[in-house]
Amino acid sequence: MISVGIVGATGYAGLELLRLLSAHPQVRITALTSRQEAGKRVDALFPHLRGVCDLSYSAPDESALADCDAVFFATPHGVTMAATPELLAHGVRVIDLSADFRLRDAAVYTRWYGMPHACPELLAESVYGLPEMYREALRDARVVGNPGCYPTPVQLGLLPLVEAGLADLNSLVADCKSGVSGAGREVKLGLLFCEAGDNFKAYSVTGHRHSAEVDQGLSLAAKTPVNVTFVPHLTPLIRGIHATLYVRVARRDVDLQALFEERYCNEPFVDVLPAGSHPETRSVRGANHCHIAVHRPGDGDTVVVLAVIDNLVKGAAGQAVQCFNLMFGFDETTGLKALALWP
Amino acid sequence: MISVGIVGATGYAGLELLRLLSAHPQVRITALTSRQEAGKRVDALFPHLRGVCDLSYSAPDESALADCDAVFFATPHGVTMAATPELLAHGVRVIDLSADFRLRDAAVYTRWYGMPHACPELLAESVYGLPEMYREALRDARVVGNPGCYPTPVQLGLLPLVEAGLADLNSLVADCKSGVSGAGREVKLGLLFCEAGDNFKAYSVTGHRHSAEVDQGLSLAAKTPVNVTFVPHLTPLIRGIHATLYVRVARRDVDLQALFEERYCNEPFVDVLPAGSHPETRSVRGANHCHIAVHRPGDGDTVVVLAVIDNLVKGAAGQAVQCFNLMFGFDETTGLKALALWP
Amino acid sequence: MISVGIVGATGYAGLELLRLLSAHPQVRITALTSRQEAGKRVDALFPHLRGVCDLSYSAPDESALADCDAVFFATPHGVTMAATPELLAHGVRVIDLSADFRLRDAAVYTRWYGMPHACPELLAESVYGLPEMYREALRDARVVGNPGCYPTPVQLGLLPLVEAGLADLNSLVADCKSGVSGAGREVKLGLLFCEAGDNFKAYSVTGHRHSAEVDQGLSLAAKTPVNVTFVPHLTPLIRGIHATLYVRVARRDVDLQALFEERYCNEPFVDVLPAGSHPETRSVRGANHCHIAVHRPGDGDTVVVLAVIDNLVKGAAGQAVQCFNLMFGFDETTGLKALALWP
Amino acid sequence: MISVGIVGATGYAGLELLRLLSAHPQVRITALTSRQEAGKRVDALFPHLRGVCDLSYSAPDESALADCDAVFFATPHGVTMAATPELLAHGVRVIDLSADFRLRDAAVYTRWYGMPHACPELLAESVYGLPEMYREALRDARVVGNPGCYPTPVQLGLLPLVEAGLADLNSLVADCKSGVSGAGREVKLGLLFCEAGDNFKAYSVTGHRHSAEVDQGLSLAAKTPVNVTFVPHLTPLIRGIHATLYVRVARRDVDLQALFEERYCNEPFVDVLPAGSHPETRSVRGANHCHIAVHRPGDGDTVVVLAVIDNLVKGAAGQAVQCFNLMFGFDETTGLKALALWP
Repeated sequence: MISVGIVGATGYAGLELLRLLSAHPQVRITALTSRQEAGKRVDALFPHLRGVCDLSYSAPDESALADCDAVFFATPHGVTMAATPELLAHGVRVIDLSADFRLRDAAVYTRWYGMPHACPELLAESVYGLPEMYREALRDARVVGNPGCYPTPVQLGLLPLVEAGLADLNSLVADCKSGVSGAGREVKLGLLFCEAGDNFKAYSVTGHRHSAEVDQGLSLAAKTPVNVTFVPHLTPLIRGIHATLYVRVARRDVDLQALFEERYCNEPFVDVLPAGSHPETRSVRGANHCHIAVHRPGDGDTVVVLAVIDNLVKGAAGQAVQCFNLMFGFDETTGLKALALWP
Repeated sequence: MISVGIVGATGYAGLELLRLLSAHPQVRITALTSRQEAGKRVDALFPHLRGVCDLSYSAPDESALADCDAVFFATPHGVTMAATPELLAHGVRVIDLSADFRLRDAAVYTRWYGMPHACPELLAESVYGLPEMYREALRDARVVGNPGCYPTPVQLGLLPLVEAGLADLNSLVADCKSGVSGAGREVKLGLLFCEAGDNFKAYSVTGHRHSAEVDQGLSLAAKTPVNVTFVPHLTPLIRGIHATLYVRVARRDVDLQALFEERYCNEPFVDVLPAGSHPETRSVRGANHCHIAVHRPGDGDTVVVLAVIDNLVKGAAGQAVQCFNLMFGFDETTGLKALALWP
Repeated sequence: MISVGIVGATGYAGLELLRLLSAHPQVRITALTSRQEAGKRVDALFPHLRGVCDLSYSAPDESALADCDAVFFATPHGVTMAATPELLAHGVRVIDLSADFRLRDAAVYTRWYGMPHACPELLAESVYGLPEMYREALRDARVVGNPGCYPTPVQLGLLPLVEAGLADLNSLVADCKSGVSGAGREVKLGLLFCEAGDNFKAYSVTGHRHSAEVDQGLSLAAKTPVNVTFVPHLTPLIRGIHATLYVRVARRDVDLQALFEERYCNEPFVDVLPAGSHPETRSVRGANHCHIAVHRPGDGDTVVVLAVIDNLVKGAAGQAVQCFNLMFGFDETTGLKALALWP
Repeated sequence: MISVGIVGATGYAGLELLRLLSAHPQVRITALTSRQEAGKRVDALFPHLRGVCDLSYSAPDESALADCDAVFFATPHGVTMAATPELLAHGVRVIDLSADFRLRDAAVYTRWYGMPHACPELLAESVYGLPEMYREALRDARVVGNPGCYPTPVQLGLLPLVEAGLADLNSLVADCKSGVSGAGREVKLGLLFCEAGDNFKAYSVTGHRHSAEVDQGLSLAAKTPVNVTFVPHLTPLIRGIHATLYVRVARRDVDLQALFEERYCNEPFVDVLPAGSHPETRSVRGANHCHIAVHRPGDGDTVVVLAVIDNLVKGAAGQAVQCFNLMFGFDETTGLKALALWP
């Protein structure tokens, strides 16, 4: 059994970690911290956990965390990087669901997150937690920067075309729609039921933090700088991201369906749907899967890739558990086999 | 391994059976029938099952079903009773999610469902599938009439007071609110997103079929005829029932919280929340639990019981699997341990 | 033209006042106050008002308000009563959408709202703003206490039976369901899309402030103290209240449909639907109407009354404008003729 | 007073016409036809119209329609073109909300709608009902082809750039999201609350009928053939379309905000929001406005235009009334001044 700590288990991603890890046969959760709720039973705050989780929150306590084999951080950015060096010194492996270890370049981090990086020396070592790109490196990783929710389907949807050198890299468009849980469990006016419900809008069109991460990943895959036009939207559902990706592909002689199927044929959680499909967010609600379809409307220059995930699972907690499984030598799907909840 | 058939696995309850039984370690699904979709792969119609279920629908075929150990019916009323005698003759045990085996009295069945009962001789033998009332009888049952969605929380919420003789039986009110999936996967105008969404209404105030079932169950518990005023409402959520139950209780010297806790202390799926709680449907979304709270506002005569379930799980497929577990000697919670999907 | 001020026009009720009064042919809005947004244009914060409203918020300023003919308060309780004596001294008439002038008894106010009443001497003079009960008194009122959202359909639904002496006053149950806007535009965790969405729950079962107001109104109508069992619920829609009312009526010889129709035959905004109807909240979305239906299930003792309103219109701003029309001698429906937005 | 007929007033667009025309001071509705509901009162089927509309449906009857000054068709395609020549012969002016008179080329009509055009000779005369492009022609039109819901915001959002010759016409992308009412009041499985709710998906990626209309309009504006990559999505709200438009604009020396503001400075229903804005569908819910914002993320080559409408108003019935006002010499905003319903 691996002893695991979760820091910040009062937000949606942290609670989703708790849901997934509670059903993981190789995990014992030994520390669950929350500064605000310290001392309270988890299931008193979250009755859906009654009968399953008898833990109480403890104050963030480095010594309890230092005794864990692995610690997940589901915290605002800035928290993980402050705690990581000490944990590594105790032999704890760190999986960070915040942005602290996603970007390779500390200057880019500072530009987007408005603070200096606390341990830039770890950035080279840390591994980006997208198993479909970095599976081997993840096995030995001490620090994992789990991808953002949007970057997961955007990269998974674009990688086959970018890696194959087929995409016109100057015109990539990622039009993304997210359920409201993607904004976290923050008490903000715009996230109220009466504000976000029965409404649809774009936001951060002039620049969203996740674009840095997408550009980094695709640039590495393309081996040349890539700049995606990334527009996120808020849609009135709780869980789910739908990425609609537009790629100019001059060559007509490529079987795109085959290209995508081959790229992901060994991936347990990336599923290329039959040609002509339209993936739906509800098909992956609660599951760690990414469903992808590829279209070339009117046999024209513009290829349209559709990719859906559950932002809290493959876009956050599920992907983190997938990385954890790789790090500790378990089957990659352990604890992640639950079916989507449908309808 | 128990070989299982599902008849009618294209509706919401049938698909939920498939979700639950796919994760049941003692079950092998060997027949999945649908007249309309015969020959098609299940996961082609329902992509959330890709990678988990490689079955195809077959035409309803008595011989394939006759080879099963157990057959679940998730069909409109009338289908199960036509097929059951033949299946019993082959030693198959039947769990019916329709109304065919819920009512003890064939005349009552005819009054509410508008057709004669096809095998009234089986009504005495069949067992009502509410384990909290009929656990022992279920172990040996050959035919189980799985309760309706509304009757489950209404009966679970009222039983402690009725069994204890505390309830004024002349004034029972069950004000129930259901998510839209309770109406099934039927293509009806009133179930459209634009009709049922952003709307709230009562329906069938003058008489709903489930009231017969509630009255039957409570009458048996009270050992005297009981007539509940039952008003169902449609609320714009997919899964979930909230029953608000009003009971006049003259006696003030009873500790209602203790009464409820004792009644259900050994029940794996009925959870009496701490005093003062307000259960929420989302706490049981996707789970087989019923959460109950009991209040006596203003220390008055009227006791208010709040009970929530997921209508597709504890209100249909989950309860059916719970009965199945009892019938075949498995731990009652086998295959039913998944946590609610929250948020 | 009547010059009108609105205090607190950044909440849902205040903005709804602005919507309705902008279309009122006899109203000129001359003061719009908000401490927090002072100096900002209203349509910069609320783009749905672009092109219609070129006002800016001003700081709450007694002199500007004192120049108005009428001032609406859409504020938290406590604000109106502090400002009212001074406004009355300047000849301004006050319509309060908060709770300050709803309750006749200052001690009851203090018990429910936790503060002493600032001007108890005005309570006898102020008029409860339910035109269906107090039309004549409203014409001359200087201070109007606009009803709460829940009390409006509960009283309208029960009055015919109570006034006729038909209701068993010991067993009145009001099971009420409200859309989320009823909780106001407050940034609270429980009102987030991901908390209130896809969920249904009761709240304040042990006691809700609106019950005091309901009990007061019905006691006056019954000429004897009445105590309603009142249970509010939160349902995932933005606008709308559905009240399901349970009344024991021993007499069988009364034509309930006729009773209701006669009681409201001259009411422009209370509409008794044909026998057998189930009113829907969406039928009154954005409109000032209350739709009512009355049922006697199974011809039993318990009568079920269904009543729906839009909580922001007939439950708040629309009712306030209706009172305003009476106070200033306009046709009662002026500015209130817009159809419901359906679907 | 203009006497008006509505054919097909049982669908969402037809009912929205009824809502708008009921409040139009210059209109008397004299014929309201529905084959299926003939003889029934409108407000018996649609209680939100009680007290406002005392009409009954009549069977489609050419003579009653022939007596009207204008007839609106809110029917499936094919109906209008069959009836129009006869109506024109009687001097009736026709406003068609279906697709029959949108496309100039009968062959294109046949390709997308699968039937020959019944009166191709009228296509040259009929006017496309987008006042922002064809205002003058609309004043004298006998037949108007009211635009589709998607084409309205797509064209309004792209026209300024296309007309100014700034857009790279080879890479236009229109990523559109529609509320469910855009699919009409049809009883289809995919439109059920439990299928379309809590879900997001693209559809018709390989080709949607509205793309023909968009291409036609933009080609006329560009004076050269244009082919937009158009991807529609279904989003879980009732009303609203959000178009996110991607246009490559090489020139950096153009003030895009000024360009858009100038293009629409005299338009009563197109509102260019301040620079940096993100329009929301709820800001135009129930109103005839189109809100537009223009962005150039990262000062790059790709310009992003955001445009929102209510698909039933500016995307259907409201636009039709706007055309009607032009045709009959009324102020263009008559009957269209109601504010959006917010929240």
